[in-house]
Amino acid sequence: MNRDSRWPNRNTLWAEVFVSELVAQGVSTVCIAPGSRSTPLTVAFAEHPEIDVLSHLDERSMGFFALGRAKRTGEPVPVLSTSGTATANFHPAVIEANQARVPLLVLTADRPPELRDSGANQTIDQQKLYGSAVRWYHELPEPEANGRKLRSLRVTIARALAASTGTPPGPVHLNVPFRKPLEPTPVPGDVPDDIADTEPLGATGRDGPFVHTAQGRSVLDDSTVDRVADALATERGLVVAGPSTTLDASAIAALAEATGFPVCADPLSGLRFGPHRADALVCGGYDSYLDADAWPTPEVVIRMGASPTSKVLRQYLRRSIRESDTRQFVVDPAGEWREATFVASDLLVADPNRLARTLAENVEMSASNEWRDRFAAAERRYWRLVDDASSEEFFEGTVLRDVFADAPDPATVFLSNSMPVRDADRFGEPRDAGLTVLGNRGASGIDGVLSSGLGAGSATDEPLVVVIGDVAYYHDMNGLLALSRCDVDATIVLLNNDGGGIFRLLPIAEFDSVFEQFATPHGLDFAPTGELYGFEFVRADGRESFRDAYRASLDSAGTQVIEIPFDAERSHRFRDDLQKRVLDEFDEK
Amino acid sequence: MNRDSRWPNRNTLWAEVFVSELVAQGVSTVCIAPGSRSTPLTVAFAEHPEIDVLSHLDERSMGFFALGRAKRTGEPVPVLSTSGTATANFHPAVIEANQARVPLLVLTADRPPELRDSGANQTIDQQKLYGSAVRWYHELPEPEANGRKLRSLRVTIARALAASTGTPPGPVHLNVPFRKPLEPTPVPGDVPDDIADTEPLGATGRDGPFVHTAQGRSVLDDSTVDRVADALATERGLVVAGPSTTLDASAIAALAEATGFPVCADPLSGLRFGPHRADALVCGGYDSYLDADAWPTPEVVIRMGASPTSKVLRQYLRRSIRESDTRQFVVDPAGEWREATFVASDLLVADPNRLARTLAENVEMSASNEWRDRFAAAERRYWRLVDDASSEEFFEGTVLRDVFADAPDPATVFLSNSMPVRDADRFGEPRDAGLTVLGNRGASGIDGVLSSGLGAGSATDEPLVVVIGDVAYYHDMNGLLALSRCDVDATIVLLNNDGGGIFRLLPIAEFDSVFEQFATPHGLDFAPTGELYGFEFVRADGRESFRDAYRASLDSAGTQVIEIPFDAERSHRFRDDLQKRVLDEFDEK
Repeated sequence: MNRDSRWPNRNTLWAEVFVSELVAQGVSTVCIAPGSRSTPLTVAFAEHPEIDVLSHLDERSMGFFALGRAKRTGEPVPVLSTSGTATANFHPAVIEANQARVPLLVLTADRPPELRDSGANQTIDQQKLYGSAVRWYHELPEPEANGRKLRSLRVTIARALAASTGTPPGPVHLNVPFRKPLEPTPVPGDVPDDIADTEPLGATGRDGPFVHTAQGRSVLDDSTVDRVADALATERGLVVAGPSTTLDASAIAALAEATGFPVCADPLSGLRFGPHRADALVCGGYDSYLDADAWPTPEVVIRMGASPTSKVLRQYLRRSIRESDTRQFVVDPAGEWREATFVASDLLVADPNRLARTLAENVEMSASNEWRDRFAAAERRYWRLVDDASSEEFFEGTVLRDVFADAPDPATVFLSNSMPVRDADRFGEPRDAGLTVLGNRGASGIDGVLSSGLGAGSATDEPLVVVIGDVAYYHDMNGLLALSRCDVDATIVLLNNDGGGIFRLLPIAEFDSVFEQFATPHGLDFAPTGELYGFEFVRADGRESFRDAYRASLDSAGTQVIEIPFDAERSHRFRDDLQKRVLDEFDEK
Repeated sequence: MNRDSRWPNRNTLWAEVFVSELVAQGVSTVCIAPGSRSTPLTVAFAEHPEIDVLSHLDERSMGFFALGRAKRTGEPVPVLSTSGTATANFHPAVIEANQARVPLLVLTADRPPELRDSGANQTIDQQKLYGSAVRWYHELPEPEANGRKLRSLRVTIARALAASTGTPPGPVHLNVPFRKPLEPTPVPGDVPDDIADTEPLGATGRDGPFVHTAQGRSVLDDSTVDRVADALATERGLVVAGPSTTLDASAIAALAEATGFPVCADPLSGLRFGPHRADALVCGGYDSYLDADAWPTPEVVIRMGASPTSKVLRQYLRRSIRESDTRQFVVDPAGEWREATFVASDLLVADPNRLARTLAENVEMSASNEWRDRFAAAERRYWRLVDDASSEEFFEGTVLRDVFADAPDPATVFLSNSMPVRDADRFGEPRDAGLTVLGNRGASGIDGVLSSGLGAGSATDEPLVVVIGDVAYYHDMNGLLALSRCDVDATIVLLNNDGGGIFRLLPIAEFDSVFEQFATPHGLDFAPTGELYGFEFVRADGRESFRDAYRASLDSAGTQVIEIPFDAERSHRFRDDLQKRVLDEFDEK
């Protein structure tokens, strides 16, 4: 043992600097999959007293777990893997993090440069592995006990975290080469004995972060704000809040209050649920009643967050351009265009929360309440219809209604893509409760849903509910290992229609001869997953049994998967019938 | 229904041309995961009478399944997914296909170009998604009933297949945009009624492939062959056959016979097992006895295939350069350098099979047999030691010995990375039987192993054996769905040491305080996976019970997973002891 230096070799020093700077910058949790090449960092993470290490075995699930956690907290979560195909398993989560704007710090250990493309084992081309999906890619130099290199390492970490939490937030990829020895084996002369004295800034850093980062947010000039405020000074306006984890509900509610505009609040916008409803008319039934031909179009729309989940809402906004050339403002802090019908008239590159507060102070409200009252009345009528329908037929919509209505306050609810998020959109009634509702709506994949949900749940002591279909459940069963390894408790609502759901909604359902290629029956009995991962697997086959199981799960420790079988065909018909009923009622008036 | 044209719309026509050209080019099987955007191609595949559709639900597993199948057959297997993160799930298999040189045709459906980066759902940047890991990337134009475009589509498919089966073979990525309607819904005027008459070459193709492709192979000129033959005209030479699915055992055996050189045959070289042993001294024990200090180094080495699995062999070849500046020829048809110690003296960019036959006709054998006899004697002594050890201790090496010794002839054996392939290398005794032994040694990941094995098994009626550790089994459990969906029978040997294997071999095992981060105990009881996927799960806890279960499984239909628990620490100690015994015996002489 080299007793003269704190660090047995350059890798030990490099990794300790790496981890200590991450911690100094505020990172408190890291997700690690086992591997050899990443040993220096794994050891440094394990030995640092101020960082929690969450260990996973499947890097694909781990990527989504970290994504879900970062989505819940807004804080970047580092994921660390060894070299080779392990790194490519992160790719789906990296793409989702990119498009959903979630900070993620992807650390891929690598072999030293001379071993690339040489036939060396577990060596692939990891450079720019995630292509255009990351905010920043950087390859670290080879570790060395050199002051400038060590300072560059600290600055790189500060930059990586700044880039991942910038505008917009997203994934950052650092490729980190190491050569042997990877373990804390003494290498005489590798680290000068006096490095802490001669290069203190590199070796031991500063008290606190090496670089303090402050993020500016985009603000419009006064004349532009006045112009927008003028455009909003009308009665028939709408605030559309799309999926987002960064919208400030109270700021958007202030804008809605000042303008008198109803808010079409996507279930993933952060606005569907919460106490801000005292100040704003938060609408949740638009995915149904705005489909009525008789419904008038707005004069002005201000959109924030990503494109809404609701196709009805998107088509309504598209129709409005035809009927009244609606002025439509897309507010995006990163200047991206998140409106795929291409009808919006204004792109405001600005922080939506600050803009909403500024506009709230500057806008004049219309004297008439007719437009707002129409939405308020529609909401009352619509949710009564949903209540009636839920008593009449036990279908996926009933479950989503009850999931939100019966959820404790506060709670985190994670929604799978495909049908659950759509049913949540249509059947999740706004409540004042502090429900944090999340989903992977960046790229809307069905992969990684369980892991993302458990990651979100791992970040808080709130009860966690995950609502998921059977294909998504199958796709990420490996993610269930996190229940025990990362000590997460969840209530998982598994809507099992044997692979039939989403495709019933598509025109292909009318082509019998090939439909079997699309319906994806797997015939799997998922009960053994409970034995495999050590949780209770219960089945519910009606509304009361579901609600009983749901409440019991929320009241108890441990994880319960509540599986409910559905007939996709029948549910699809009922959704259609119900929508016809809604339209009949709204169109006749 | 548009009764005037065979094709209801341009997508139907485009997809039919696509699939008919693939079939005309010889493709007989496609793997498809369900999705909406890929509908035109899914329908066309489903309706073509001459192509088998294998349906999967997890694109990551599907990618590896296709890889395993293509590895077994040498024929490119197309995989088709919808747009979005589904495509990124292929990335690990694409990287493995790249490095293991396996033909794979990755078809990713995409949204039309104007929807990219617009907030449209399930739309990501799929362009060059797999970076440097593909032989060719091409984005197809938007479908149109236009003769030139249709001919370009046929040519593109010919080129894609040619690129995937070129030198070296590998993955090709075609990104395929479609706009709605995706179903065979009639769109009047979309396809001219007379297109089959006016543009027959595009619309209906030619009789047979549209373009006939012939692949040349790299051949050295005569003077170079003479030079190499001269260098081989010595006694102390070695043929090193690394992992490869394209080495022709009889050609390499002819070279070995003509030179008198022993062949160090990697278990994945295609040379460890088979009837060519009549002509060549095929060695399998080198991973053990070449570690003996007393073992003399060769004067010349000719290497084919990828870098060998055996670290002992690689270090022996590296040592030989120090001791005798061995002439070392690396033969690679693609001119890549697959030798990460950088001691080889000659790179021969040539087809190894043709070169081996040419050299066999031109080389002069040394008069002495001493060198060859030394290897032959060593093999006899070594395999006796292994036999004794296998009777003495039931460890993973015993299992690998028995897996090969008791395998029926013919059979396909798929080996997981981490320990199984290493134990196969050291304990798999050469046999004359027709065993096709495969593994993912391109990037040596532990991901996708079950799927790759089942894919390989799906291509043949031979019995299939998969040997796998517990972490790799966990990583790709989803792949087990292919047993029923793709009608594969397998004998899966699951060596379960609760995550402890590989890291015991690494220096980190000596650092107690952090070793728990590396040993990856998961505590999973895998028996429920049998219930989940409908196969027999049996446990064996000794040699006889394993051999009984193994033979019973091979004699019966359906799939059996035979789990054998091992103590990683104890196995590791026994491997060490045995190796010491071997070295004592070989060094004393």
